[in-house]
Amino acid sequence: MKNVSTEPYKGARDFYPEEMRIRNYIFGAIRKVVESHGFEEYDASIMEESSLYRAKTGEEIVNEQTYNFIDRGGREVTLRPEMTPTVSRMIARKRNQLLFPLRWFNIGRRYRYERMQRGRSREFWQLDCDMFGVESVVSDVELLLVPRDILKELRVDDKLFEIRINHRGLVNEILKNYIHADDQQTYKLSKLIDRKNKIEKSLFDKEVENILGDKKELFLGILEINNLSDLPDQIKQTGAYDNLKQICDSLEKLGVTNYRFDPTLMRGFDYYTGMIFEIFALDNKNNRSLFGGGRYDNLVAIFGVDKVPGIGFGMGDVTIRDFLETHNLLPNNAVSNIDLYLCILDEKYRLDVELLARDLRANKINVCVDISGKKLGAQIKHADKMGVGYVIVIGENEINNKKYLLKNMLTSEQQEFDFEGLGKVILN
Amino acid sequence: MKNVSTEPYKGARDFYPEEMRIRNYIFGAIRKVVESHGFEEYDASIMEESSLYRAKTGEEIVNEQTYNFIDRGGREVTLRPEMTPTVSRMIARKRNQLLFPLRWFNIGRRYRYERMQRGRSREFWQLDCDMFGVESVVSDVELLLVPRDILKELRVDDKLFEIRINHRGLVNEILKNYIHADDQQTYKLSKLIDRKNKIEKSLFDKEVENILGDKKELFLGILEINNLSDLPDQIKQTGAYDNLKQICDSLEKLGVTNYRFDPTLMRGFDYYTGMIFEIFALDNKNNRSLFGGGRYDNLVAIFGVDKVPGIGFGMGDVTIRDFLETHNLLPNNAVSNIDLYLCILDEKYRLDVELLARDLRANKINVCVDISGKKLGAQIKHADKMGVGYVIVIGENEINNKKYLLKNMLTSEQQEFDFEGLGKVILN
Repeated sequence: MKNVSTEPYKGARDFYPEEMRIRNYIFGAIRKVVESHGFEEYDASIMEESSLYRAKTGEEIVNEQTYNFIDRGGREVTLRPEMTPTVSRMIARKRNQLLFPLRWFNIGRRYRYERMQRGRSREFWQLDCDMFGVESVVSDVELLLVPRDILKELRVDDKLFEIRINHRGLVNEILKNYIHADDQQTYKLSKLIDRKNKIEKSLFDKEVENILGDKKELFLGILEINNLSDLPDQIKQTGAYDNLKQICDSLEKLGVTNYRFDPTLMRGFDYYTGMIFEIFALDNKNNRSLFGGGRYDNLVAIFGVDKVPGIGFGMGDVTIRDFLETHNLLPNNAVSNIDLYLCILDEKYRLDVELLARDLRANKINVCVDISGKKLGAQIKHADKMGVGYVIVIGENEINNKKYLLKNMLTSEQQEFDFEGLGKVILN
Repeated sequence: MKNVSTEPYKGARDFYPEEMRIRNYIFGAIRKVVESHGFEEYDASIMEESSLYRAKTGEEIVNEQTYNFIDRGGREVTLRPEMTPTVSRMIARKRNQLLFPLRWFNIGRRYRYERMQRGRSREFWQLDCDMFGVESVVSDVELLLVPRDILKELRVDDKLFEIRINHRGLVNEILKNYIHADDQQTYKLSKLIDRKNKIEKSLFDKEVENILGDKKELFLGILEINNLSDLPDQIKQTGAYDNLKQICDSLEKLGVTNYRFDPTLMRGFDYYTGMIFEIFALDNKNNRSLFGGGRYDNLVAIFGVDKVPGIGFGMGDVTIRDFLETHNLLPNNAVSNIDLYLCILDEKYRLDVELLARDLRANKINVCVDISGKKLGAQIKHADKMGVGYVIVIGENEINNKKYLLKNMLTSEQQEFDFEGLGKVILN
């Protein structure tokens, strides 16, 4: 029989304990921050009926990047490529029981069949934070503070990233009432802008000309603006401009200065209706956005329930991990969660060692008992390689006198303690 | 356009925050216990190439209960129905770099297309604990202590469950050398025993007769035994018996008395080679096992690498949740993770409230700022319904004097504190 392959599924990753510690570090920090902002955790299946994504997720993702299959009951299933349709479905499902406004978060798996490259994985983990039930800019501002606090918790300096902000309403105003593009031109231009950073400038300009003809220069001029106040007066008289201006002013008052208006920011999803943003890493190695999100006030309408304003963002594990690694901000993942390793001088002490381990565990110490059957030297070496903090060797003396010589594996210092003393030192 | 359905995918569950708190409570307790036993977390994709399961997972599951599909690249993919093949693949993949013995755990999603009934879900969460690299009974005993400590942490009394234990080697001895069943009879009998609790006793006996003819009584007699010492002498002279006897004796010495030998215990998977066990709830409502596992010393052979002995168990979220609920052991899930709700007397204080929230968050307090725009009474009522512990109303006095009247929502007591005082009371 041919051997079964040991490789993970193509585009997915195995998380050995060293790598798992990094994922746990990142999402542990994130969980702490989002809970400190009053967000509550929810979850759902990674499987959804495919119809959920057809309405609003955006053509490219649904047609080219989803995992779809027919289940044994004939249902058309999609592995969720993003969380916004799911969370909107859940909101719509209990529209009349839920207590708005809501702040919800989820950390979990998402799936996209993308071409493999740096910063991508076909299965990835993502944080999604969403707020429901409030239309005012107050919630836009509250939401924008979260990614910044997450980056701070991950020890990222403000200088290393930039918040790029735009507004779908503003984009519509520009295209419809300033450029006077028709529906088809508008559609083509928004898809083109979304690809702007992926294609050559000359090609981009050429395509704008193909779509807009002699209105090309007017449009390209707008795209060069990166300060709200430089927009044409006609645009400044719109509600969308007011909305975005208020958001930016509040950010500034709260001490957030590393943001800028970016009229070329589009976000790929069709459901956004207001402010949209992405947080970009300011270095050459990580050219994808770390966070992205925006306001989607009409999404629950696809479920036939009354309107619920929504706003949210997502953050993927692959890009943030690459970014933190670039800046040497990942923790030392060779350090184990195990506090204490109990070596055993002879098998005849096994029962006593197990009982001691039981008592230590009841005192919140993470204890690993040697089961290798190897000689003492090899046991200690093993504990050291595992990255365990402390070691005790258990023999007749230890069992009879209940005194334990505790070895600190970092400093090689040894000191004797009774049972109570062990807890104090190890958990200190 | 027809409305999109708000229901989750059939057989899967939505976890609204109240339900999520319960899942987090259960797996939080579990994580604490398995880490205290020196297990380290790993993870992998839920997608595996289907070939991984054909070798050893067992016919019924692979042919009738897996989610299979062909991806956009033509690969045959299965959503993992269980973790043992995946963890074995990972062990085989780094066979020469890993430091044995290993204790690994995973908490995550598994998939089975089963008929829906109590205690089942097509997507479920499972804890898997596995140890690799040790053949001796020492590791069997170490492993068996873990589920017991988990149940203790979940406040389950020893009287509410029973550890049922058997040994694949012993089953083989009985069938081959005591009953003298041929290969085909052995195969049929093991599949039949596995279904024993699901079919009528008379039908079971009838089927045994169909397979074994006049050896029926001899075989049924063995199945009645629930004490190792009552086994026939011929069986007692085997290595498998010795092995199981040693495990049981050690358990007894360590104070575990709620176990019993169960010759009808089979476990559905084809890969087990030694001790097998299940932990059953001792009540009428929860007739499925809470934990199940065993020894599988030859599994990595399917990858063509040198033998690595393995032993492990799994525990699903649905059965344990039902079990805890039956015995009133679930926590009050109406209590939120949010420590403090800041009400706002007037929008003009918004900026000050946001700055206060920022400082409180930096002091590890989970703060929710009101964004509803509602009147004060409605804000306080909202905080109460959310299950928040404390409320402060922010107005001009609070901002100018930096003194805050803290309301305890449980007792309705109010007391004034400065900033430092808040932290002490709220996090106490």
